[in-house]
Amino acid sequence: MSRRFHVDVRSSCSLLGTALKYLSLTLLLPTAVALYYRESPLPFLVALAIAIAAGTGLEHLEPEPELEHREAFLMVALTWFFVPVIGTIPYLVDGTGTLAHPANALFESMSGFTTTGATVMDEISVEAHPRSIMLWRQLTQWLGGMGILVLMVAILSELSVGGTQLIREEAPGIQVEKLTPRIRETARALWLLYAWFTLAAVVVYYALNLFGLAPNMTFYNAVAHALTSLPTGGFSPEGRSIEAFEPIVQWAVMPFMVIAGTNFALYWYAWRGHPERLISNAEFRSYLASMTVIGALLSVLLFLGVGLAEVPEGVAAIPGSLERSLRHGLFQTLAIVTTTGYASMDFNTWSDSTQVILLFAMFLGGSAGSAAGSIKIIRWYVVGKSIRRELFTVVHPQAVRPVRMGRSTEVIDEETIHSIFVFMVLFLSLFAISTVVLFLDAHRTPGLSLSALEATSAAIATLGNIGPGIGVVGPMNNYEPFSHTAKLYMVFLMWIGRLEILSVLVILTPAYWRS
Amino acid sequence: MSRRFHVDVRSSCSLLGTALKYLSLTLLLPTAVALYYRESPLPFLVALAIAIAAGTGLEHLEPEPELEHREAFLMVALTWFFVPVIGTIPYLVDGTGTLAHPANALFESMSGFTTTGATVMDEISVEAHPRSIMLWRQLTQWLGGMGILVLMVAILSELSVGGTQLIREEAPGIQVEKLTPRIRETARALWLLYAWFTLAAVVVYYALNLFGLAPNMTFYNAVAHALTSLPTGGFSPEGRSIEAFEPIVQWAVMPFMVIAGTNFALYWYAWRGHPERLISNAEFRSYLASMTVIGALLSVLLFLGVGLAEVPEGVAAIPGSLERSLRHGLFQTLAIVTTTGYASMDFNTWSDSTQVILLFAMFLGGSAGSAAGSIKIIRWYVVGKSIRRELFTVVHPQAVRPVRMGRSTEVIDEETIHSIFVFMVLFLSLFAISTVVLFLDAHRTPGLSLSALEATSAAIATLGNIGPGIGVVGPMNNYEPFSHTAKLYMVFLMWIGRLEILSVLVILTPAYWRS
Ligand SMILES: [K+]
Ligand SMILES: [K+]
Repeated sequence: MSRRFHVDVRSSCSLLGTALKYLSLTLLLPTAVALYYRESPLPFLVALAIAIAAGTGLEHLEPEPELEHREAFLMVALTWFFVPVIGTIPYLVDGTGTLAHPANALFESMSGFTTTGATVMDEISVEAHPRSIMLWRQLTQWLGGMGILVLMVAILSELSVGGTQLIREEAPGIQVEKLTPRIRETARALWLLYAWFTLAAVVVYYALNLFGLAPNMTFYNAVAHALTSLPTGGFSPEGRSIEAFEPIVQWAVMPFMVIAGTNFALYWYAWRGHPERLISNAEFRSYLASMTVIGALLSVLLFLGVGLAEVPEGVAAIPGSLERSLRHGLFQTLAIVTTTGYASMDFNTWSDSTQVILLFAMFLGGSAGSAAGSIKIIRWYVVGKSIRRELFTVVHPQAVRPVRMGRSTEVIDEETIHSIFVFMVLFLSLFAISTVVLFLDAHRTPGLSLSALEATSAAIATLGNIGPGIGVVGPMNNYEPFSHTAKLYMVFLMWIGRLEILSVLVILTPAYWRS
Repeated sequence: MSRRFHVDVRSSCSLLGTALKYLSLTLLLPTAVALYYRESPLPFLVALAIAIAAGTGLEHLEPEPELEHREAFLMVALTWFFVPVIGTIPYLVDGTGTLAHPANALFESMSGFTTTGATVMDEISVEAHPRSIMLWRQLTQWLGGMGILVLMVAILSELSVGGTQLIREEAPGIQVEKLTPRIRETARALWLLYAWFTLAAVVVYYALNLFGLAPNMTFYNAVAHALTSLPTGGFSPEGRSIEAFEPIVQWAVMPFMVIAGTNFALYWYAWRGHPERLISNAEFRSYLASMTVIGALLSVLLFLGVGLAEVPEGVAAIPGSLERSLRHGLFQTLAIVTTTGYASMDFNTWSDSTQVILLFAMFLGGSAGSAAGSIKIIRWYVVGKSIRRELFTVVHPQAVRPVRMGRSTEVIDEETIHSIFVFMVLFLSLFAISTVVLFLDAHRTPGLSLSALEATSAAIATLGNIGPGIGVVGPMNNYEPFSHTAKLYMVFLMWIGRLEILSVLVILTPAYWRS
């Protein structure tokens, strides 16, 4: 790796320009949808023009950009900020509903591209908004998911950020010195898988309609939900999320959430004839185990009736029904652990204890190497193993005992363990501070009554890129009542959470800019 | 260190017996006080008899106990549980007020010996309870403080628990191989200092009375408060804590809180002619700096009036008064950061933002090597430096950069750093789980309405051995309204928090009991 005496800002900006040009291409899809439904294509054409202009301008800064270690950090931070900024243009030009306000539009766009799924739309339906706009909202998540896969598997793992270096062991593709061809190679492999899974979701969802099992899962809805299943996004053009559909649709969405929250690098190996790498993976096993335990617990509580605080409207009686308890208990577990954030019912009707279980589950966060957010299972796994090791070495001070992945001989190096602990402390501190910020700001916001528990859930739901929280930020509610200051703060949380915190903090240190 | 194939439970129990015999000696003091005030000495005589009987019986189990590495863990856990159990006897035999119930008596006794200072007494006054009982309550904190000094400086640091090994560098006394003479030597040095400081507090507090500046700071009160100042305890025989006294008393208590929250090993060196070891100590500097910053911030908010939510009863108007703003802002900062838990006024009248600052300060926790609880400044210091190092090495992956204490050349070894991170994650996890346990239990408890914020404060106030929290567990309120289950859970929290969590968890691992 070559040493430089300053950061090559021009290269970083030039690569942001390239990203904006790719973004402009994707805007052709909602343009076509707008024309098909006889809606105005103007929102997308304006965004397209601006994206091309800005992209071309930025690319001119440095015609042959080089992506080295440091430039990668800046490029990633800039891209994940300015792509969502350009993404607001369709909402602003369209100008219907709450998204007409720039702060709301930025919130919605950042929530989309970071695959968070928190919304400030007060009326979510294709009656209140153009179908093309509603599809653009879904598409932002799908595009965001693509970006995150590459970010996690190819970029952050190479940069050894917060323990993501563990993914490097699993990362597919050629081992090359330069970052750029490495990214290109990995991206190609991951995106192919991502696209195939998305297509499979469209087929499965729409097949339910064709077989007469899900009358309202139209082709539009099938595409719209496939686009937000794979990136663990959670946006839905239906105001009541997946509750709006038949039970069979809810069951059909579950496997796709599980798929979406798994390390995509492992699929690559499975696809290349090494399924054992997926099956024996320690994180994958912990991921399935934690969802099984939490899902079973919630289902039992729902079945016994103690999991519900009130009788929810429009949902068939749950206590005593095995199918319904299992379905809702498991669905909400998957939706939260994978950080997708879909809802099969309003879990605000659940009792305190079941809601608190969901709140704890929000800190798990799917697998590394997927588009899932939050802390991620692998970090908990390493922390858990390190604590066990510590308890052993306190009793046996002379013992040397490395931390291993699963039962394999693969030793996790101490620097990686240290990185993970640093990440944990940073994540939890930022979460605690954010809870307080949101709580105090809400006290000054007319028309918003936010309890400390609700503030806690709003902080983890945005920082962890989950989407819905508890109470006023519940799955059938939205973030619109917050002050614009709080919304912009949450935009920051979604952004820094998505970039695994450290990669943003690095840019703020003097050491980054000096030699 | 000799290797054994099992834990010598008899030795641990025998040493617990010795501790109980020492405890019986200390019971002579409240017996004398009872006789002086013509109160019944029975509560103390019963406790004394039981302590001697149990102590002698346990000592017979192993007449020549040896304290090795593993036995130390068991001895510490047993002692910190059974000494408080014996400590309940005076409350139970006396049988006045809420302490007549065994769960309440255990809560109060554990709160005393762990220097927590949380109370379940509904009426705190020498009118409602015998003076000897109120003094016993104060004395439990003083005794607990003595125990903790030795535990931190001589035992846990030798056992390398949760980063306490950092204190070992500073620990006074001879360097010996065996644990028992080491403990004896260190205890002698620390207790002498502790006793002198306590005497100084008695003299200063009572002098204010003799000079006519504090009419209600009687000799009884001077002794009672000196006994809970040095162990960062916080119990007071006055229902309104230090608010009951003149402003000058509040000022006089402050330096003793600062003294109590400092690493006592450093005083030992200062006393032996090396004050520079105190002044240049990185933790001591961070400790003073954090209290200055938080104190100044709270004082400014109080001065401007934005720090208050309502006009507190019985307290002179604070906004605009430099002396009052400074006094209350600084007093509460010291009371919380040193984990003493005294109150110069009811901070439940403070605004949300000032209360939240106090809540955050509860996680700091004074210096290691003092009787202060919570996380402790040195751990935050090491974590902060590790995070800075991590941000540096992410940019410079080839760089090797050790973490140092202050500007010295003293490098903190990586295993110690790792222990500290493990402690942080365990402490914060136990705190989070406890918040939820208390919150959910309160929902089932008639007559107790506990918000999530109040549950948060109750969890940290007990786990961190601070005492008062926010709202219903505020400084002028008490923990009596909780269910007995919740009280016993908090007894557990005070106990495990006091023993730095890890030393208790170790006992629960199979590796501890096996060879
Ligand atoms: K999401
Ligand atoms: K205390």
